[in-house]
Amino acid sequence: MAPSFPTNGGFRLAPPTALYSEVQISRIDHCIPLPSVLKKPFNIVDGPQSSSAANPDEIAKLFPHLFGQPSVTLLPIESDAVQPSHNLKIGVVLSGGQAPGGHNVISGIFDYLQDLAKGSILYGFRGGPAGIMKCKYVELTSHYIHPYRNQGGFDMIRSGRDKIETPEQFKQAEETVQKLDLDGLVVIGGDDSNTNACLLAEYFRSKNIKTLVIGCPKTIDGDLKCKEVPTSFGFDTACKIYAEMIGNVMIDARSTGKYYHFVRLMGRAASHITLECALQTHPNITIIGEEAQHLIAELNEIMASCSVDEGGLWKKKLTDQSLKLYEFLPQAIREQLMLERDPHGNVQVAKIETEKMLIQMVETELEKRKHEGTYKAVFKGQTHFFGYEGRCGLPTNFDSTYCYALGYGAGALLQSGKTGLISSVGNLCAPVEEWTVAGTALTSLMDVERRHGKFKPVIKKAMVELEGAPFKEFASLRDEWALKNHYISPGPIQFTGPGSDAISYTLGLELGAQP
Amino acid sequence: MAPSFPTNGGFRLAPPTALYSEVQISRIDHCIPLPSVLKKPFNIVDGPQSSSAANPDEIAKLFPHLFGQPSVTLLPIESDAVQPSHNLKIGVVLSGGQAPGGHNVISGIFDYLQDLAKGSILYGFRGGPAGIMKCKYVELTSHYIHPYRNQGGFDMIRSGRDKIETPEQFKQAEETVQKLDLDGLVVIGGDDSNTNACLLAEYFRSKNIKTLVIGCPKTIDGDLKCKEVPTSFGFDTACKIYAEMIGNVMIDARSTGKYYHFVRLMGRAASHITLECALQTHPNITIIGEEAQHLIAELNEIMASCSVDEGGLWKKKLTDQSLKLYEFLPQAIREQLMLERDPHGNVQVAKIETEKMLIQMVETELEKRKHEGTYKAVFKGQTHFFGYEGRCGLPTNFDSTYCYALGYGAGALLQSGKTGLISSVGNLCAPVEEWTVAGTALTSLMDVERRHGKFKPVIKKAMVELEGAPFKEFASLRDEWALKNHYISPGPIQFTGPGSDAISYTLGLELGAQP
Repeated sequence: MAPSFPTNGGFRLAPPTALYSEVQISRIDHCIPLPSVLKKPFNIVDGPQSSSAANPDEIAKLFPHLFGQPSVTLLPIESDAVQPSHNLKIGVVLSGGQAPGGHNVISGIFDYLQDLAKGSILYGFRGGPAGIMKCKYVELTSHYIHPYRNQGGFDMIRSGRDKIETPEQFKQAEETVQKLDLDGLVVIGGDDSNTNACLLAEYFRSKNIKTLVIGCPKTIDGDLKCKEVPTSFGFDTACKIYAEMIGNVMIDARSTGKYYHFVRLMGRAASHITLECALQTHPNITIIGEEAQHLIAELNEIMASCSVDEGGLWKKKLTDQSLKLYEFLPQAIREQLMLERDPHGNVQVAKIETEKMLIQMVETELEKRKHEGTYKAVFKGQTHFFGYEGRCGLPTNFDSTYCYALGYGAGALLQSGKTGLISSVGNLCAPVEEWTVAGTALTSLMDVERRHGKFKPVIKKAMVELEGAPFKEFASLRDEWALKNHYISPGPIQFTGPGSDAISYTLGLELGAQP
Repeated sequence: MAPSFPTNGGFRLAPPTALYSEVQISRIDHCIPLPSVLKKPFNIVDGPQSSSAANPDEIAKLFPHLFGQPSVTLLPIESDAVQPSHNLKIGVVLSGGQAPGGHNVISGIFDYLQDLAKGSILYGFRGGPAGIMKCKYVELTSHYIHPYRNQGGFDMIRSGRDKIETPEQFKQAEETVQKLDLDGLVVIGGDDSNTNACLLAEYFRSKNIKTLVIGCPKTIDGDLKCKEVPTSFGFDTACKIYAEMIGNVMIDARSTGKYYHFVRLMGRAASHITLECALQTHPNITIIGEEAQHLIAELNEIMASCSVDEGGLWKKKLTDQSLKLYEFLPQAIREQLMLERDPHGNVQVAKIETEKMLIQMVETELEKRKHEGTYKAVFKGQTHFFGYEGRCGLPTNFDSTYCYALGYGAGALLQSGKTGLISSVGNLCAPVEEWTVAGTALTSLMDVERRHGKFKPVIKKAMVELEGAPFKEFASLRDEWALKNHYISPGPIQFTGPGSDAISYTLGLELGAQP
């Protein structure tokens, strides 16, 4: 697993037969710091009774056993008393799209059990929630986990996008946790997966099953966050990978003066990734979806409520402003806007090839100006899409450390008998030693949505706040960036030396760190 | 230029108003080691009389003043004598596509002049060879160069793809070097640009103009190399950037098991980049163009010699094997193969969307198997093109050091009165101190090609040698890689710590370092 590399003088050469690159190996051996509170005896202290993000009555009905339960905080005890420890059987599952750091959440849980609940067993469910339903799992040993420490990807146990939704599926999950005699289950996922985790917690509690359920905030999109959960893991690494590529392309553009580059980034409705990459690289123009959602919102409503007639009568339902924008769009893009909606009835924004749309629009405008004699130059557009490259990169120092603390904290929450909480690590601008560790009641993050005539609980996606510090910082600078090529090249993610401990602008600005 | 960053506890935050990222700043300050021979007094020693790569009689006719001149080597003198130094006026130009490290070649020339020819002047021609012809230049001072040290891109003086070809253009170049009273000119470019450099050297010599011309080997494609010039700069960085992305996508594939990823890489006919990336990452299947050039070669001949008739009679000129392959290709790809040739009459290989072709071919085959009942799974292909991201990244330690030595050496060659040489730094597997520094007669790398009825000198592109060590290493491993997912994720380029001083497999294997 970790061959040694011969040194050929000043520059080293790794054998192409090795299964890990030199950098991967160095990351396996990287020692992760823990928040101080996790290194010494601690108490888990209840906060006040909680409510929900909205519609508390509906949430209370959906979660009769969990609604109102307090969030908790880990606080150090000034004592040398050995903490009570008992063996646990814990399961862990990766749910949904990959995000750098998932392996470290698992390592964190494992190490917690090793350190504070010796003799415990950790099972990894294979292939996402389907692994729970089908009882497909592997026992995670020290040996098994070792090669995945600080590595990207979810390949240790893989992930999947299945959900535990129907009564039969809940029953299957019940059978699995009973069969494995699980004391706890950690669900690593995004907003939907954490909602699912809370439903499972409620279900087990309602049936007097001992299995506790704790969630962990995962998504490169950065749209699962709140006061208690300052960021989702993977966002930091993915943004830095995209920003590296964007910065390189910018320097390319400045060197040749030949192309205008149009970059689309992976993601769903929220534009946190785009905003963060803009703050890191200073593009001339950045489109933050949250600023111009009117047309899409209106189209969604029309498509949900009535059929789109060939004759175009449906267009009368658009407001003037939206109609004007719609008519301005090239045909190909109009068609993309009318594509099938996702299961939530939303435009599948990431599937719209915005970068091509923009080039077409610029070409149309410049063609017009040429005819008018006001433009004479040659416009060449070059498109880019950065997506898969960012989901499975080696996690940054931040994501490595953050995820490890999330997992270690989840272990502590389970051992103290908590359920229906999401592992919450805070104070992230401070040195790691000062990070706070807590568990936030999942019901406190919830609202309801009406789907198919029924109320469904949802953790509301955090969109870019136009009044938030990151957007305001961006808005205060973008006019200058538009005119001057103040490009910045963040360069490749570093694991040691300068830049290696930088946090994202989004996080820094949201937490009020002085830029 | 180099603001200091506040430390917010454990993790640092750089202000989004800074013009450089933290990593960029750390690179500006990075101290580059020099080969020992350049740090102490040296002699420049002539080798034996040289010839050409082929057709020496024709080359002799094309370069009557330069043909046969010896290559030279810098050798240390065992003496404390101060080396004779005189002021020089030198021009430098970046020619063709960007490659990481170009700025360091310029820094190397500048520092040589500062160290060993105090009072010299360095001019940078703007926008490539056009800058020479139009006498557009900037005086490069310590202050001017500083922010570009170890930075990617060619934005210090930009590049361009113009060539100095016609008698009028040679006359323009002559006027410029006379006006600036240039003692020397350094041309940083690929095979064509170095050929051009040699023609300029011959021209100046023939007209008794004092301006000497030295070339430097630049191209991410890695196809400008020979015994004396082991690699072109930029190849190392570009491959490592592409390999980072490929490695990430591989881990993504292994984590989800959802997509088959098809990656196309930037480049022309030579497949060095693809081969290097394969050795770094272990893909299941790698296509090395040099292995299957027959069809394209035949198509080139047909398209050059006759018109392609609608009826398809031209196909009779294909050999059976090529016709079979052609007929097997999807229509869209056939059309791309018949696209306009580049100025050299070659298929513009990089413009063929091979990744899409392959997915179509796989789909066709699997559809067939489905009908036959031998395939039941779902195949989903995902395409990637990595190109612009790699040309302007921050140069690796290797490219930074290599380029600096190339530039420093070019300064030494000019001061000793040499012309028509390409700066040549060798022994690259050894510690930097032991690297050799030399100048190779450009005419010795040349062959002739018949273009438009005339012999034109060319430096032959180095293609992937099917008998060479890198290909043989790859060939010995690819069957295993095809069956087992032995993916390797090289991770982001590191500037300090593990992996930061790795050289490319291609270079290591070609130079005989034990893998």
